Amino acid sequence: MGSDFTRMWSVLEPIGRDAGTGGYRRFAWTAVDHELREWFAAECASRGLHVTEDRAGNQWGWWGDPDVTPGVVIGSHLDSVPDGGAFDGPLGVVSALATVDALRAGGVTPDVPIGVVNFVDEEGARFGIACAGSRIITGALPAARALALTDADGTTLAEAWRTAGRHPGTLGPDPAALRRVAAFVELHVEQGRALALAPDGSEDLSDPSRAVAIGTGIWPHGRWRIDIPGEANHAGTTRLEDRHDAMLGLAGVVQASRTYAAQRGCVATVGKVRVEPGGVNAIASHVTAWLDARGADEAAVRATVADVEREAGGVGAVTVEESWTPPTTFDADLVSRLSGILPTAPHLATGAGHDAGILAAHAVPTAMLFVRNPTGISHSPAEHAELADCEDGVVALTAVVAGLCRRKDDAR
Amino acid sequence: MGSDFTRMWSVLEPIGRDAGTGGYRRFAWTAVDHELREWFAAECASRGLHVTEDRAGNQWGWWGDPDVTPGVVIGSHLDSVPDGGAFDGPLGVVSALATVDALRAGGVTPDVPIGVVNFVDEEGARFGIACAGSRIITGALPAARALALTDADGTTLAEAWRTAGRHPGTLGPDPAALRRVAAFVELHVEQGRALALAPDGSEDLSDPSRAVAIGTGIWPHGRWRIDIPGEANHAGTTRLEDRHDAMLGLAGVVQASRTYAAQRGCVATVGKVRVEPGGVNAIASHVTAWLDARGADEAAVRATVADVEREAGGVGAVTVEESWTPPTTFDADLVSRLSGILPTAPHLATGAGHDAGILAAHAVPTAMLFVRNPTGISHSPAEHAELADCEDGVVALTAVVAGLCRRKDDAR
Repeated sequence: MGSDFTRMWSVLEPIGRDAGTGGYRRFAWTAVDHELREWFAAECASRGLHVTEDRAGNQWGWWGDPDVTPGVVIGSHLDSVPDGGAFDGPLGVVSALATVDALRAGGVTPDVPIGVVNFVDEEGARFGIACAGSRIITGALPAARALALTDADGTTLAEAWRTAGRHPGTLGPDPAALRRVAAFVELHVEQGRALALAPDGSEDLSDPSRAVAIGTGIWPHGRWRIDIPGEANHAGTTRLEDRHDAMLGLAGVVQASRTYAAQRGCVATVGKVRVEPGGVNAIASHVTAWLDARGADEAAVRATVADVEREAGGVGAVTVEESWTPPTTFDADLVSRLSGILPTAPHLATGAGHDAGILAAHAVPTAMLFVRNPTGISHSPAEHAELADCEDGVVALTAVVAGLCRRKDDAR
Repeated sequence: MGSDFTRMWSVLEPIGRDAGTGGYRRFAWTAVDHELREWFAAECASRGLHVTEDRAGNQWGWWGDPDVTPGVVIGSHLDSVPDGGAFDGPLGVVSALATVDALRAGGVTPDVPIGVVNFVDEEGARFGIACAGSRIITGALPAARALALTDADGTTLAEAWRTAGRHPGTLGPDPAALRRVAAFVELHVEQGRALALAPDGSEDLSDPSRAVAIGTGIWPHGRWRIDIPGEANHAGTTRLEDRHDAMLGLAGVVQASRTYAAQRGCVATVGKVRVEPGGVNAIASHVTAWLDARGADEAAVRATVADVEREAGGVGAVTVEESWTPPTTFDADLVSRLSGILPTAPHLATGAGHDAGILAAHAVPTAMLFVRNPTGISHSPAEHAELADCEDGVVALTAVVAGLCRRKDDAR
């Protein structure tokens, strides 16, 4: 399978890549996104897969008719965060197409349809809502709210759809598209070092049994906005004792987030801030900071955020929850079948959100496969996975689909 | 004089004021700036002052011919910082015009010309360089560099000039305009609480001898850019111990700036930051912070910055000086004459930069008057000065000009 995987990879490589940073800027409903969608449709067509689009614009390439029998779906997304890496998303799509090739090369005739999906706007880089494509078809993101989302230039999703030649009136929940999915297995590059480290904590990139893991769920995670007050004033003439500098409040929030997350075994991050008025010679009158917090244990995440909120409140800051996603546990039966097919693969819950999580929350039987990330770096041009591990990923996904596309009562 | 002062004030009040914040957005070479310039030219014309513009676009209204005898110049600027107050700049311009009225009402016939100036782009809010108007005519800001400055939209100053119907080729040093200035006295609202606090540190807003101060100089001040490294990574999947989060470095820089400035009796401020990539779910790969530091004592300011630089260096940050202005001492003879005219006025050095400082550094005899600021708030919609204190400012400025516009050897 190697040759076709690397061919697809090399075609995708230059699309949306910034020459300066080497990172990808593949944002939903842009010209770059259009090129990626054309590529996906052409790859499906060349394999004789029937390409359809649902009411969010997600693309599905079907082998067999899922309106007769729901099928096994594999795939992921092609969009990226700003200056993202090559693997987050595309690895799952390319591996899914390579899996179709491998099944056919192996002479597999599936009992149920097999689908390859390209979810649109997984990262939310342009309109701010992650997993927008899966949220729209499941109804988790209402159509009216989706269409009113704006990008940094003030363009609404509705306008972006019109520019892309689409009709905003057709956007909305799509239960028919979801009914076609008997099971969804999303293969994704691992985004931490969970597979790069042996159980004893030492680095081990050579253990073949740790090249691919079975995803068991997604950590609870949320996003909070912290508004830190200050008082606008002149940086040259205001005595230190007369100041109310919101930047000092920010410094405390950033440090508290790290300290309390470490104490409770979670992760917490302040990665986005807005400083007003933002002048070099102006004391900050207001700072807005966004806190991202996640962890394996829901109570620990909640307690971490409560700690940060209490400390921020000490300087008059107000903390508001912008989103909260409870823990996602993937389908127990499906995970069990994957374990039977891949008996040596480790099990792993992840701190990252995925379309698989949205579908799981909508009662679609769902699981994931993770391919080892040697450095743990993700959402960065330096994101990487070794080709040998990617090949192991395709082998594992092929085995999984070959197993799942048999009827359970089929004795062959 | 009160009626004309308040009439001018009320005409200026709505121009460039943001309805939402109540603050002013009067930026150089915009439509709002044009309106302010038209207002200034009309006020000069109505007083029979001859309006000229120099090669930076600063406006001068002359009573008498300064090409025959250099004159005494008063005035300030009309532009603002983003969401600035009403007084910073306009108080000096309106007081200068009111002073011309008061001199005439008092029957003064000056022996030397009197000029009223409106310096353009004092705040540097649009193109990033403070005191651009005075820096251009003195040559402190070379023409080629000035014309290439860009605003937030990428518009160059040259383009802004063309849009305003001006010829960029005419911009440059203007020694002829400077030769006309025998002395410059800039009246300005005080920007700290130096006049609101009695010498014992208690608040006293009623002492009439503290309504107006004589400016003796400008503190040394500078601006440094601090580049704090990090490593882009996913906020959900990267273990705390694997992170290089540039935001933690920023938190340290902000707190170090406050701590060291307090230890050394200076002021230091981080009011502008840029966080990359700036996503809620992305660990900061790079933070750029700008440090503003000032103080009465040059060595103390230098030592404060060295302390911050050393601490920032501990997380790999690199500190680069973007600008440095040594202490400005206003003309000793001029300050002495002002003291003779206003014997009870306190003397005050300020932490804020002014066009007066640029002219003083160019060997133009220069001094300032400061009008009491009851709260010390400046560069904010809440900036304020009491009308009674403003009136005292005009009375003081009138006495100063009446004294200075006599030839020294004139015995009348």
